[in-house]
Amino acid sequence: MLTYNLTNADGPLYKCLYECIKNDIAQGKLESGEKMPSKRTLAKNLGVSTITVENAYDQLIGEGYMYAMPKRGYFIADVSDIRVIKAPVHREVDIKMPPEQDENVFDFSSNRTDSNNFPFSIWAKLMRETISLREKDLLRVSPCGGVFELRQAIANHLASFRGMNVDPDQIIVGAGTEYLYGLIVKLLGKDRVYCVEDPGYKKISQIYECNNARCVPVQMDAQGINVDLIKKANAQIAHISPTHHFPTGITMPVNRRYELLAWANESDDRYIIEDDYDSEFRLNGRPIPPILSIDACEKVIYINTFSKSLTSTIRISYMVLPEHLANEFYKRLSFYACTVSTFEQYTLARFISEGYFEKHINRTRLHYGRKRQRVLESIRKCFKDEECKVIENDSGLHFIIQLDTKMTDSAVEQALLKKQIKLQAVTDFNINKKKKDRHQFIINYSNIDMDRLGTSLAEIRRLIVLKDK
Amino acid sequence: MLTYNLTNADGPLYKCLYECIKNDIAQGKLESGEKMPSKRTLAKNLGVSTITVENAYDQLIGEGYMYAMPKRGYFIADVSDIRVIKAPVHREVDIKMPPEQDENVFDFSSNRTDSNNFPFSIWAKLMRETISLREKDLLRVSPCGGVFELRQAIANHLASFRGMNVDPDQIIVGAGTEYLYGLIVKLLGKDRVYCVEDPGYKKISQIYECNNARCVPVQMDAQGINVDLIKKANAQIAHISPTHHFPTGITMPVNRRYELLAWANESDDRYIIEDDYDSEFRLNGRPIPPILSIDACEKVIYINTFSKSLTSTIRISYMVLPEHLANEFYKRLSFYACTVSTFEQYTLARFISEGYFEKHINRTRLHYGRKRQRVLESIRKCFKDEECKVIENDSGLHFIIQLDTKMTDSAVEQALLKKQIKLQAVTDFNINKKKKDRHQFIINYSNIDMDRLGTSLAEIRRLIVLKDK
Repeated sequence: MLTYNLTNADGPLYKCLYECIKNDIAQGKLESGEKMPSKRTLAKNLGVSTITVENAYDQLIGEGYMYAMPKRGYFIADVSDIRVIKAPVHREVDIKMPPEQDENVFDFSSNRTDSNNFPFSIWAKLMRETISLREKDLLRVSPCGGVFELRQAIANHLASFRGMNVDPDQIIVGAGTEYLYGLIVKLLGKDRVYCVEDPGYKKISQIYECNNARCVPVQMDAQGINVDLIKKANAQIAHISPTHHFPTGITMPVNRRYELLAWANESDDRYIIEDDYDSEFRLNGRPIPPILSIDACEKVIYINTFSKSLTSTIRISYMVLPEHLANEFYKRLSFYACTVSTFEQYTLARFISEGYFEKHINRTRLHYGRKRQRVLESIRKCFKDEECKVIENDSGLHFIIQLDTKMTDSAVEQALLKKQIKLQAVTDFNINKKKKDRHQFIINYSNIDMDRLGTSLAEIRRLIVLKDK
Repeated sequence: MLTYNLTNADGPLYKCLYECIKNDIAQGKLESGEKMPSKRTLAKNLGVSTITVENAYDQLIGEGYMYAMPKRGYFIADVSDIRVIKAPVHREVDIKMPPEQDENVFDFSSNRTDSNNFPFSIWAKLMRETISLREKDLLRVSPCGGVFELRQAIANHLASFRGMNVDPDQIIVGAGTEYLYGLIVKLLGKDRVYCVEDPGYKKISQIYECNNARCVPVQMDAQGINVDLIKKANAQIAHISPTHHFPTGITMPVNRRYELLAWANESDDRYIIEDDYDSEFRLNGRPIPPILSIDACEKVIYINTFSKSLTSTIRISYMVLPEHLANEFYKRLSFYACTVSTFEQYTLARFISEGYFEKHINRTRLHYGRKRQRVLESIRKCFKDEECKVIENDSGLHFIIQLDTKMTDSAVEQALLKKQIKLQAVTDFNINKKKKDRHQFIINYSNIDMDRLGTSLAEIRRLIVLKDK
């Protein structure tokens, strides 16, 4: 008869008994097919209750170590496979995560917006109210495209701020533009050729490649992506940011926009993905109308994000699909649940519809407009005109400086990094490798510390301009 | 000289002037290359300030309708492409969204958990505290795998609740399991063959197919997915839910688990994806240990979600990667931003680490255990033993009933739907089409209204059992 010492049991008795029997099975002391004592007999033998044995047996049966046969009793299962593999041992894991940003480095390359501008107290107030007032809605599952209130608020905002006439049902909400790019590939299919602007954010082409779509970089000219080169590349999808391109800062002029639309209209399988990520940051005048607003033939997928205009910790982006693509989305992809929590969707819906978002944008534009002026003044004070030329068009959160130096772009970058200054060359964003140094560097000013700007610029001048001559 | 009537201007004057000039350009009244009057001259002519003209010109230049030449003045750009395309007209869109659930239908097929069980007031309290106390953390960008506090809380929970010994750095947090499946395909590559359990959730294979991975259904036997058939299918990745399979309810016994691990160990490119989506709902005894806890060779990717255990509106899931895959994730895919907002991450971290999650699970198990008993009793009361056999193993939020009927499964479903009752056959979840009616139906009891259960069961009996004979 099985006998175990359960007097020193740590935890529930049944668990201890279960462990003892399991060990005996794993070590082969109890063999496949062996009949186990009845619950009552074993309980009596061990001096425990029948319930304890029953619980242990149930667990062993649940995990497959034993089986029951009606009216015949309990038997050991065939677990001969168990002994094939060695048991896991506890060990330290060594996982290399991406390094954190070094706070001592003065970083002209970060495109983060300043989180101090985010109206946290208003947002917090709306969150508190959403928690108190919307319990029922919060516990209802979001439609896959996002809750109607948010889609409605976005449609109204697009109408008043961007002159776009879209239906809330054309809007699909998702957790970040990267997620939406993935949905677009699922919607349009991986077999089309996607083209991206060169130079540009490498991340965009990386995401297309990660989604197994063919992605080709297409050269920009002074007006933006070159339509003849799109044709040469046999691309069907053009992913562009016509309002304010990074890194060149180009705003695509209206004739190129129409040229691009004409190209898209030549074939049913062609579309334009209009990535409008920083349209809110045109610092003077009215925003440039998006291509979508002049598109009469359902050729434009418009995409934008609140991670840029509000704060990067809010992971809410959206896309506007042409009617026929929206229908295809709901037909084929509506099994994808919405990736944004209802809670943040309702909070953002109120933030927009009660006018806080527009106020925030206006205040932010003012803030960055002033900051930009101060940065430009500092550059003018520090450099002589011929040493540093500024290339900018009053738009977005970065501009370009052209330095008069004989050093290579990467030598400039490396020398500055030793001085704790991170400056990136425009050519770093070339996607096709052929690099020709142009001595143009990006000034992302949105997140820099103005107190350290003067000394950092002086350092650039000392290292590059003075040393160089 | 250009003359416009700006006296009835609606909105800012410069905007009105900009519209007038833009129209003249679009209609060809102002031609490509034509020189425009200087700002001062036009201002004088129209009786407006120079600033007004300057703003209008800047906007037209920004959008590409005009260009400036230093010391020569302003000129109309070549916008001949504009007239190629007709302007968009406002029209109604007709987008068919998935139909909403009809509240009158008594639904045995919904696997939603009851949102009334969600401890909303505690969650709300933690949210309020997170807003008040963590402002700085909330505005810091989440690491791509999730904030450390949440990963640490999940690791501790897995250790105490599931006996799993994992490092927080092995955990990747994402907005829903569907999103994580997509990341897994990006990590393991689309060129491996993924196999899923047949029968099973079709959504899982749909997601693999949407991500362009080859996905094959593999037949289950009484112990779960059949390893010989996995070999025959030449699959490298087995996506399984061994704790409690849907719809069969099978818990994979320990010998099959080892057999599967042995299979995975035969080749470097093989992995097991252990989808543990409802392990929290084993209603009696201890949870079944996951395969990961007996995996000594880094062959298991463990995946679980809070959308099931907490409430479906919380879109937070996670996966546990073996060390070498975690390193590969961070090397190749860390440009993907975390899809869950910091706000919900910190709230959930506290919900877990302060013991509320464990309390919630215990209370929920008790609740569903009782509900299940009441549903089983109602079935026993309504049907004679030979009319309806219950197939269940004390686990998860569904079980199966086998009806003694000569009607086909789909005839049963259709007849009941006319009576506002939705009952789904197990064979509906067959992925390979060969359907053989088994008269087995799924009772998802988690979200049903107990007050209407008796009449619904009587309706089933009346329609199926009585009418049939």
